[in-house]
Amino acid sequence: MTEPSQAPPFPRGFTSASVAAGIKAKGGPDLSLLRCDAGAVAAAMFTTNAFAAAPVLASRRNLRDSHGHCSALVVNSGCANAATGPEGAADAEAMIDAVAAACDCTPAAVLVNSTGVIGQRLPIDRITAAIPGLAKACVSGSCEPFERGIMTTDTRPKMSTRTLPAKDGGSVRVTGVAKGAGMIHPNMATTIIVVTTDAAVEPAALDAMLRVAVEGSFHRISIDGDTSTNDAIFCLASGAAGAAGDPAELQRALSEVACDLARMVVQDGEGFTRGLEVRVRGAATQADALAIARTVATSTLVRCAITGGDPNWGRIVAAAGRSGARVDPGRLSVQAGGLTLFADGAPQRVDRKAVEAAFATDTVIVDIDAGLGSGEDFFLSSGLTEAYVRLNADYTT
Amino acid sequence: MTEPSQAPPFPRGFTSASVAAGIKAKGGPDLSLLRCDAGAVAAAMFTTNAFAAAPVLASRRNLRDSHGHCSALVVNSGCANAATGPEGAADAEAMIDAVAAACDCTPAAVLVNSTGVIGQRLPIDRITAAIPGLAKACVSGSCEPFERGIMTTDTRPKMSTRTLPAKDGGSVRVTGVAKGAGMIHPNMATTIIVVTTDAAVEPAALDAMLRVAVEGSFHRISIDGDTSTNDAIFCLASGAAGAAGDPAELQRALSEVACDLARMVVQDGEGFTRGLEVRVRGAATQADALAIARTVATSTLVRCAITGGDPNWGRIVAAAGRSGARVDPGRLSVQAGGLTLFADGAPQRVDRKAVEAAFATDTVIVDIDAGLGSGEDFFLSSGLTEAYVRLNADYTT
Repeated sequence: MTEPSQAPPFPRGFTSASVAAGIKAKGGPDLSLLRCDAGAVAAAMFTTNAFAAAPVLASRRNLRDSHGHCSALVVNSGCANAATGPEGAADAEAMIDAVAAACDCTPAAVLVNSTGVIGQRLPIDRITAAIPGLAKACVSGSCEPFERGIMTTDTRPKMSTRTLPAKDGGSVRVTGVAKGAGMIHPNMATTIIVVTTDAAVEPAALDAMLRVAVEGSFHRISIDGDTSTNDAIFCLASGAAGAAGDPAELQRALSEVACDLARMVVQDGEGFTRGLEVRVRGAATQADALAIARTVATSTLVRCAITGGDPNWGRIVAAAGRSGARVDPGRLSVQAGGLTLFADGAPQRVDRKAVEAAFATDTVIVDIDAGLGSGEDFFLSSGLTEAYVRLNADYTT
Repeated sequence: MTEPSQAPPFPRGFTSASVAAGIKAKGGPDLSLLRCDAGAVAAAMFTTNAFAAAPVLASRRNLRDSHGHCSALVVNSGCANAATGPEGAADAEAMIDAVAAACDCTPAAVLVNSTGVIGQRLPIDRITAAIPGLAKACVSGSCEPFERGIMTTDTRPKMSTRTLPAKDGGSVRVTGVAKGAGMIHPNMATTIIVVTTDAAVEPAALDAMLRVAVEGSFHRISIDGDTSTNDAIFCLASGAAGAAGDPAELQRALSEVACDLARMVVQDGEGFTRGLEVRVRGAATQADALAIARTVATSTLVRCAITGGDPNWGRIVAAAGRSGARVDPGRLSVQAGGLTLFADGAPQRVDRKAVEAAFATDTVIVDIDAGLGSGEDFFLSSGLTEAYVRLNADYTT
C-alpha cells in the first residue's frame, strides 16, 4: 500500500471540474462536479442534525431511489442551502435537474450538497447557468479542481489516496477529498467528504465499508462541537479497475483514507496552531473510553491550555471527571508525551521542563488509563485559539 | 422586597474577614472566614464531578455529621486542593481543625472549600498559621471582605441581598456572594456561592429551598462548559431575626438572590463582552426546552457570533437541530430582540439594520418557539472572546 500523496490521481472512471459560478461574494471556484458516466455504485452518510439541509434530504432520497447508484455529484460552496424552506428544496431539485440534463442521466442518479452560510438562498440562476459548461469541462486524472471548488474557510485542499492490487491484475485506487474547517463535530459523517475508487463493489458492501471507515475517523474528531446541517460523506465506486484482490484490503484502504482526511480536517481547522490527541484505555467499557476521550478533547479549558503549551493537566482530570463515564480518582492515570503526571490519586513528580516540552509539540498526545477495564478509544481535536474566535465572530457580517 | 444593592449588609448573627495568607503568587486576599458563633442551620450542594476536591468531600461529610448545622466556613482561593490525593485530604482536615480550634467549635461544625489551580498542594502551613488571626479579625456588618478573599480571575465582587418581613416584626435579610469566572457549567451548584440569612429555618426546609433556588439560577448558566471539581453553594441561616413572615417569601428571596448572583457570574465571566439569553417555549417537554436552550447558549459558533454582533441566526437553528430535543424544522421559529428571523421552515424578511441592532445589545435575547407543546426553559451564557482564550492559554504557566 503506498503512502498518501499530496496530489493524488483520480481512480479510473471518474472526471471532474470546478468553476467560479459567483456564489461566493469574494469570487473563486465555488461549484464542483464529479462525473462517472458509466455509473458508479454509491454509498453515503449524512448529518443527524434535525435541520438537515435541502440538498442532504434530496441526496438521501435519490440514493434510496437509485438503489445505491450515481452518475454525478454536484457540490457548491459559499451557501449551505439549509433552513431555506420549500424554496431551498426547489433550488436543490433545480441543481439536480440541471446536472441530469447536462450529464444525460436520470435525476435520481445525481447526488447534491452545499456548504457555507446557513439560512440564505442559493443564487440558483447562476448555478444552473454554469452547469452545462461545468459538465463539458470535466477531465480525468486529478481531483484537485473538484476539491478547490468545495472549500470554504479551508486554507488548503485535503486529499488522500491508496493503491492496492486488483483481483485480475493491475491495481485499484482509492482517493478521498474533504472540505471543512468549522462547524465540525462528529455525529454521522462530519463536513463534506468525497471518496472515489475504481474498485468493483456491490452497493451493500460499499455501504458497510463506509460505515466502518467513518466510525474510526470522522466520528473521532471535533473542531468546535457544532454538528453542521450539511455534513455528508459520499463514497463512489466506478468499478473500472475490477474487484479488489482482497476485500479486507479495500476496507483498510478506505479506512486509512478516511483517517488521513479526518486528521487533515483537524489540522486545517479554523485558527489551528496545535493538535490534541487523547487516547484512553482501561475504561470500564468502550463507550466510557470514548466519553472520556471526547470530553477531554473538546473541553474548552483543555483546548485553551493546549494553545498556550500550558501543562495544566488538572483540567484534563476535571474533564474526565465530568464525562459521565465511570471514573475512580484513585485508579485513573494521566500521561502526556509519555510522562506520568497523575497516578494513584495524586500528582506525580516530573521535571517541569520535560512536561512543558510535551505540551509544546505539534500534536500533544494525552494518554489516560482509567484502571478499570479493557475499554479503549481515542479522539482528535486542537487548541482553541484567538484566531478561531476572530474568524467566527464576523463570518457573515 | 428591596432592590439588590452593591454593598449589601450581612444578615445578623454572622461575622467575617479575609486575609492575604500567601497562597496566591501575586498576593492579595486569598483566605476568607465566615463565622456564626451561635451556630447556623446549613444546607449545601456540591459538584457532580467524579474528581470532587478534598474540601468538597470533607464538607459533604461534616454537613452530614452535623445534621445540617455549622459554626464556620473557611474558603481559600489560589489553589483548588483537587486531584491532590491523601495529602490533599489531610490538608483539608488541617484547615478544618485549625478553624475549629480558633472558633471554639467542633470540627464537624466547620465547612471548607478551595478554588484555583487543580492538582497543586495547598501551602498548608501558611494557612493554619493565618487562621487564628483571621478568626479574631471577623466583624459584622459587611460581607465584602469575605467575598474579596474568594475571588480568582473575577474582576469584581458579586453580591446580592433581599429583605423581607419577619414573623414577629422586624425584618429578615438574605445576602449572597459568589466567585467564579471560568470552569463554569452547571451540574449541581456551579462555582462557589455563599448565601447567608438571619431567618430561623429548619435544616430540611433550608435544603429544599436551596435546591429550588439553584435549579432556576446556577443550573441555567455556563461560561465554558467545564464543570469544576470544586463547585459548591453553601446556605447558612443564623436565625437571629426569627422566622420569616411567609416561608414562600423566603423562598422567593433566596431564588432572587441566586438569580442575581448567577447573572453576575456570567457578566463577570472570563473575557466577557456581551451576554446571551436563550428562552425556549413550545417544546414537546420541559427537558426538551432546556436541551435546546442549553445547546444554543453553549454552542461555540453561536457564542462567537454573539461576540461579533453578527446576526448569523443559521447557527442558532443548527444548534437547535443537534440538541437531541424533538425539533420540527417546519414549526420552529427564532426571534432575536423581538424580530422574527426564521419561521414556517424558512428565513423571514427583516430589516438588516434592525437585526444588527438586536445583536449589538449588552445581552442578546434569543426566543425560540418549538411549536410542538408547552415545554419552557431558558439558559444564560456569553459571547466567546479572544480575551477568554488568551487568559486561559496561560493560566498556570
